Amino acid sequence: MPALGTLAAALGLELQGDPDCEIRALADLDSATTDDLSFVSEKKHLGKLSQTSAGAVILHPDWSDRWQGNALLSDVPYVSYARATVLFDNHPVPSGRVDSRAFVADDVKVGARVTVDPGACVEPGASLGDRVWIGAGAYIGHGAVIGSDTVIKPGAVICHAVIIGERCMIHSNATIGADGFGFAPGSDGWVKIEQLASVIIGDDVEVGANSAVDRGALQDTVVGDGAIIDNMVQIAHGASIGSRTAIAAQAGISGSTRVGARCFIAGQAGMAGHLTIADDVHIGGQGRVASSVTEPGHYSSGTPIQPLRAWLRSASRFTQLDQMARRIAELEKLAGLDSEEGDSA
Amino acid sequence: MPALGTLAAALGLELQGDPDCEIRALADLDSATTDDLSFVSEKKHLGKLSQTSAGAVILHPDWSDRWQGNALLSDVPYVSYARATVLFDNHPVPSGRVDSRAFVADDVKVGARVTVDPGACVEPGASLGDRVWIGAGAYIGHGAVIGSDTVIKPGAVICHAVIIGERCMIHSNATIGADGFGFAPGSDGWVKIEQLASVIIGDDVEVGANSAVDRGALQDTVVGDGAIIDNMVQIAHGASIGSRTAIAAQAGISGSTRVGARCFIAGQAGMAGHLTIADDVHIGGQGRVASSVTEPGHYSSGTPIQPLRAWLRSASRFTQLDQMARRIAELEKLAGLDSEEGDSA
Amino acid sequence: MPALGTLAAALGLELQGDPDCEIRALADLDSATTDDLSFVSEKKHLGKLSQTSAGAVILHPDWSDRWQGNALLSDVPYVSYARATVLFDNHPVPSGRVDSRAFVADDVKVGARVTVDPGACVEPGASLGDRVWIGAGAYIGHGAVIGSDTVIKPGAVICHAVIIGERCMIHSNATIGADGFGFAPGSDGWVKIEQLASVIIGDDVEVGANSAVDRGALQDTVVGDGAIIDNMVQIAHGASIGSRTAIAAQAGISGSTRVGARCFIAGQAGMAGHLTIADDVHIGGQGRVASSVTEPGHYSSGTPIQPLRAWLRSASRFTQLDQMARRIAELEKLAGLDSEEGDSA
Repeated sequence: MPALGTLAAALGLELQGDPDCEIRALADLDSATTDDLSFVSEKKHLGKLSQTSAGAVILHPDWSDRWQGNALLSDVPYVSYARATVLFDNHPVPSGRVDSRAFVADDVKVGARVTVDPGACVEPGASLGDRVWIGAGAYIGHGAVIGSDTVIKPGAVICHAVIIGERCMIHSNATIGADGFGFAPGSDGWVKIEQLASVIIGDDVEVGANSAVDRGALQDTVVGDGAIIDNMVQIAHGASIGSRTAIAAQAGISGSTRVGARCFIAGQAGMAGHLTIADDVHIGGQGRVASSVTEPGHYSSGTPIQPLRAWLRSASRFTQLDQMARRIAELEKLAGLDSEEGDSA
Repeated sequence: MPALGTLAAALGLELQGDPDCEIRALADLDSATTDDLSFVSEKKHLGKLSQTSAGAVILHPDWSDRWQGNALLSDVPYVSYARATVLFDNHPVPSGRVDSRAFVADDVKVGARVTVDPGACVEPGASLGDRVWIGAGAYIGHGAVIGSDTVIKPGAVICHAVIIGERCMIHSNATIGADGFGFAPGSDGWVKIEQLASVIIGDDVEVGANSAVDRGALQDTVVGDGAIIDNMVQIAHGASIGSRTAIAAQAGISGSTRVGARCFIAGQAGMAGHLTIADDVHIGGQGRVASSVTEPGHYSSGTPIQPLRAWLRSASRFTQLDQMARRIAELEKLAGLDSEEGDSA
Repeated sequence: MPALGTLAAALGLELQGDPDCEIRALADLDSATTDDLSFVSEKKHLGKLSQTSAGAVILHPDWSDRWQGNALLSDVPYVSYARATVLFDNHPVPSGRVDSRAFVADDVKVGARVTVDPGACVEPGASLGDRVWIGAGAYIGHGAVIGSDTVIKPGAVICHAVIIGERCMIHSNATIGADGFGFAPGSDGWVKIEQLASVIIGDDVEVGANSAVDRGALQDTVVGDGAIIDNMVQIAHGASIGSRTAIAAQAGISGSTRVGARCFIAGQAGMAGHLTIADDVHIGGQGRVASSVTEPGHYSSGTPIQPLRAWLRSASRFTQLDQMARRIAELEKLAGLDSEEGDSA
């Protein structure tokens, strides 16, 4: 159990209160007990401070009058909370060695203190940077390059010639570098287009469980530095994802689409192929992005859930919308109003 | 080939007809032959009885005058059919032993008649209950607990400290306990929030192929007893799924959302984070759940498919809906009608 | 580096220009350099020919007056490009042998020049046709049949009794033959319906990474010859997919739905269960298919993204659509117009 003063020093934060207070764990305000460190990340949660039992709280200096207990003062409390999680991290640690039950080809370039766990397979020509960790049963294809300090979790598959940067984490059962979905319509059926390019993933990228980033046909698929990708995200061949862009679960980016930097793509959103999305674009959940987006900002699509019977009426009327608009225009004409149809054609 | 009388006894059902009739297999009414057992689960299918060649049929006693052949009478014919499938089950059976080509750490607690197949990896500190079956190439992380009679199918990944109850089935390539998607926006990019909590899965839970249930940051992600989860479902960190809730394929539940008991979430539905969904809520396919649902019932969203040209008109008009409503209000004012705009603002 | 004349011969195309021109690689028109072969697949791209540095171009004979350089003339330039990718293919090649670190049951039927890579597991009773390639860590269940020249990529799982045709490719972490999502509502919770049937996949089928094709309850799930399936596609139990149908990423086909031949199902589209979709139907991205489609053609659903505030207004009005339609009808009555409500009820 670290003392609060030790945590303050490790996080570089000013401490108010008792430096010897021992902290057992991190907890949110609602569930924290007297030996927990908690945090307030948004002003709207300040009201919870009067109820919490937390032994100490990370909060903004401007809010310190709202809390009489032990505090760590941070201009960015949520970031300080994130850094604190590292101090309490309970994930297993790598062994720093290649397990004898792993399958590593003779010519693989293995950096310092590399871990390869049982059942993992690393094919000829691959290269593993220093402190790389290849989890149990993971697969690293021929000639793939894994940058230093990158972790490939159990069951993840990295196909041939894929390049992954430093400090990345590829979660379990993700597939990086499978063939893009490319076929030409031949007279006897689909003719496969061999996907000759690869995938290049930058530094500090996280790819979630069961996600897929396909290799390109002629152009590499690219994920920029610091991008974060959630579970079951599909990134198709030749797409590029800008630096620090976040893509939530089950979203899909079609082939050759270029997503800018610092975008946020919410869950289950989908983008058609060959689009260009500007920097700093936010797409709402299930967003249907069928054309390029040139201006930063928040965009959304879809309709809200309604009780079933009400929805059936709305959905039925949706198919009559054009007729309804024409009827309004007709009424406007009769009433001597200028129809606004001109605007809306 | 069991005799019909044997099946009646095994299923605890009343038999009408020939107990010695030999049954080869189960089949639906349309394809059943004279040595098949079939079933009628809904009144609307009774008409098919006159056409079927089935050697015997499971049906409700109230419907027995509609069928002169061999019958097994059940108050719940569909449930009786389900129980009958167990009698005809043709899945491979476990060996009851730890294969020498599996990788099982020395300190793993291994129950009675546990099966661990080739290439599976069970990390230190894990615990496998009686009759647990770990499929080929599956992964059980450090300290994970797998309850008795649970089956982890080939290629599934159970991360460290995850707790899974009894009689569960986790299908192939599912990932339980990968890091939740938690990052704080630092000045130099995203700062990872270590996911310190875990996943707790109750008893009698099924998780489909290629699904993911992420571990929580500070609060465990919880799946209640008897919940059933289809393929490619995403359950994000800190979410909780109530008992006996069913979630169909490709649906997604965002972080910290609490889904009640006995809900039915249809395919590709999506829920935003931090919502509360009452018990007995049904969400239709592709439902867009952006706010909490407090009342049980059926909800839906979205629009129906239309031929492309008609849809283009509808979709275009959708973006003009507010303008259309205002134009109707203007006409109502001109006509001396009370505008209903007040209700709809 | 092959000479252009050699390529022309291999592709069966007429050459215009220098047969000795050496070709290093394939490239698109924008990025091609003087030792690259490029292609024009659509008339609308002919304008790029004046800018490209390509050493040679595949194009339609009708367009040859637009290009003075080296050319390969093809009536189907995109198909010829696809065939050319095979000539430049850089994928790893199979070893043609069963690795000693693979787990292959004694009674497995192994064809000529079969490759089984390290960590793969092939269960008893399975059959591998000639030149089959089972990637590292892949799983082939009891009695499964893999046709000649089929490739099962690393980490893919083929469950028991599944039948896969010839020349198929099943990408990494795909799951073929997991249990369909079948449960009956018992008084004490869900009662599992054992999925007794299997999956039958035809010849020349491709299944993308992290996709799932579930086994049927009583009827096999069927994927027809030449169908192509992208990543993270869900095909539920008892569904059938027609020959040469293409299904893009993250689309979902529910149980017992029958999709015709030569359909194109775009990304994230979803189909309810027990539907019949005609041949030659195209469903747009995120299409919501809740009823059968009897006529070939293009169909779409959903709404386009809008800037957030505009969308909030549209979405809110969507829930008032029925009321709006009734107000229009009322105005029409007042104005002495025949209401069109009759059509739209």
